[in-house]
Amino acid sequence: PSSFKSKVANVAKSIKKLGQDDPRRIIHSVKVGLALTFVSLFYYARPLYDGFGVSGMWAVLTVVVIFEFTVGGTLSKSINRGFATLFAGALGFGAQHLAILSGKNGEPIVLGILVFLLAAASTFTRFFPRIKARYDYGVLIFILTFSLVAVSGYRVGVDELLVLAHQRLSTILIGGASCIIISIFVCPVWAGQDLHKLVVSNIEKLASYLEGFGGEYFQETKTEEGGDVSKKDKSFLQKYKSVLNSKTTEENLANFARWEPGHGKFRLRHPWQQYLKIGALVRQCAYQIEALNGYIDSNLQVPQEFQSKIQESCKNMSSESSKALKALASAIKTMTDPSPANPHVESSKNAVKDLKIALKAASVNDLDLQAIIPAATVALTLTEIVKCVEKISDSVT
Amino acid sequence: PSSFKSKVANVAKSIKKLGQDDPRRIIHSVKVGLALTFVSLFYYARPLYDGFGVSGMWAVLTVVVIFEFTVGGTLSKSINRGFATLFAGALGFGAQHLAILSGKNGEPIVLGILVFLLAAASTFTRFFPRIKARYDYGVLIFILTFSLVAVSGYRVGVDELLVLAHQRLSTILIGGASCIIISIFVCPVWAGQDLHKLVVSNIEKLASYLEGFGGEYFQETKTEEGGDVSKKDKSFLQKYKSVLNSKTTEENLANFARWEPGHGKFRLRHPWQQYLKIGALVRQCAYQIEALNGYIDSNLQVPQEFQSKIQESCKNMSSESSKALKALASAIKTMTDPSPANPHVESSKNAVKDLKIALKAASVNDLDLQAIIPAATVALTLTEIVKCVEKISDSVT
Repeated sequence: PSSFKSKVANVAKSIKKLGQDDPRRIIHSVKVGLALTFVSLFYYARPLYDGFGVSGMWAVLTVVVIFEFTVGGTLSKSINRGFATLFAGALGFGAQHLAILSGKNGEPIVLGILVFLLAAASTFTRFFPRIKARYDYGVLIFILTFSLVAVSGYRVGVDELLVLAHQRLSTILIGGASCIIISIFVCPVWAGQDLHKLVVSNIEKLASYLEGFGGEYFQETKTEEGGDVSKKDKSFLQKYKSVLNSKTTEENLANFARWEPGHGKFRLRHPWQQYLKIGALVRQCAYQIEALNGYIDSNLQVPQEFQSKIQESCKNMSSESSKALKALASAIKTMTDPSPANPHVESSKNAVKDLKIALKAASVNDLDLQAIIPAATVALTLTEIVKCVEKISDSVT
Repeated sequence: PSSFKSKVANVAKSIKKLGQDDPRRIIHSVKVGLALTFVSLFYYARPLYDGFGVSGMWAVLTVVVIFEFTVGGTLSKSINRGFATLFAGALGFGAQHLAILSGKNGEPIVLGILVFLLAAASTFTRFFPRIKARYDYGVLIFILTFSLVAVSGYRVGVDELLVLAHQRLSTILIGGASCIIISIFVCPVWAGQDLHKLVVSNIEKLASYLEGFGGEYFQETKTEEGGDVSKKDKSFLQKYKSVLNSKTTEENLANFARWEPGHGKFRLRHPWQQYLKIGALVRQCAYQIEALNGYIDSNLQVPQEFQSKIQESCKNMSSESSKALKALASAIKTMTDPSPANPHVESSKNAVKDLKIALKAASVNDLDLQAIIPAATVALTLTEIVKCVEKISDSVT
């Protein structure tokens, strides 16, 4: 019983955490409940029920299936569903008429062949990456509606089918409209805004890594005894890891964002693709940081003499890159001119030059080559990061 | 018209390519068409129609929504749908009985509140990553079925509802069963096997990169004039890039694989999680290769003197790691003992030692430190890769 209690407590804790991490989740759940309760009214209220009959069911179905977390997701699904239903319905009627021409016996055969052909062809189109990303749900509904219309018509007769189609379309419309209205007007969650925030926070994560890196790396190799103290707040050294695998999330958000109307600071045709490009460059930079991170824990002793020569420029590269990234992040965040980042990009490039000069001037006599290589690698990786940051800065316009 | 023609030709080409890349896509499309045509029979054949009536629609709907590319996907959705429908149906009837107790006027209010509460609570559970990964579709169907049952009961009456529920369940069963049978017995696509192949091919991609790297890197710095020749077949230098972003695909496949029965070489409870672990280590190694790849194009001149000292051990590290990875890949592929990889892991570790000795022996006098650092970084990154390969080798058991 005590283990059961602790399990319940654990579940309660994780529920609480989930809600606290993003309170919009709770709001979203309430919104779905609201939309569903609203369309259920069409069953309860007699005048409405008499108008729509059993088709009211389709309103419930539409709400459950269409309502997504983001406005873009909901819109994408509604629009896909709406157009696919109309188009497939019309084709279905056409198929009916074609089938009737071939007589009572031929009709089911013709219909069967048509359903087979359309279903197979449409299923194949779902393998196109572009269609998969944007119209996957539409194609699904297309297959569904076409099959239903073609198949029911055979039993029900075309006239009755038209009434059914009319009822079904209006209920789908009601369901879709409730979803769209609730998702846009009650605490909306914009995919575009989320994408914007994600890219900004990814850049900030890299910046905070680079900000701390200089101190962390040179501190640790200098005062080995103080290792315990510096281990305390290393969380900033782990945060960048989430950037490595952000590609899928970014692509999904960008796909949804393109369906969204203008909102807040974003116009209708905001260049969401640009975010994907920046995101790819940011990931590129994160890979370099991943390589860099491999050396932060290596407690290889670098000769004091060599280290003091590169320390200055390495710290500068790291901190100036960090400042440049921070400036870029805040420029993206406020959608202002990213030029405040330029001086930092410049001084990080100067630090690269300083490093080169320092290396050239370094007397390599009496140095243990093996011992200095890790530090040299760190320095070189930092120069690669500087290049990445420059590319990111160029892509933010 | 000529531009239209070329467009059509382009589309035709991409269709052909899609089919050639993976012919299972074409087979899958045909399978969906078959399943759909099969369940349509329930509409056409009079005795069946009389038994099921309009509920036959649910068979069509089930097939369209459930049929996935992999067996695991189809099974996961069918099982989710089946259990969710049963459970939600039972709860819906319970809700009906509860609502009736509160009188004709109170009934819709009680039902409305229940629908709202259940929909909101269930929607919230979908945010749990675990539930999202495995039971997302089940929760969706749960909300849908509960709302439909609770809401229809109010209009139709409980007795008629039971008949409806019976019809609907049997048609869903027929739809689900057709999907499962066709997806398992007609040219099945196993998610487990795909995961297996993906991990193997990812390891092979890294191996082929490392195999070519030694030659590529030292060739290029040696004979700068021959650059044009060596640029010819560089495709192996790009393939590893797809490994960087393989996480989502691997996780999806692993999620589907756990639903699959034993097939081919795989038992029912094959340790699919192990593949994710190996996959993560392989990605770790790919990040290092990404860092390495940054230096392959840098045409910095490394002094011949220094290069000749590290060339031997670097080439060995690279080629022995490659051989170890290849041995591991083929061990995973054939599910045999991975010990053939051990000697290669050992000799790659020896190469690391050789490198250290070479560096120690290298007279650093008269060397341009700046010029040798890129080569030194390459060497150090290779030692990191050797470490990664050792970890991968340890995880393959």
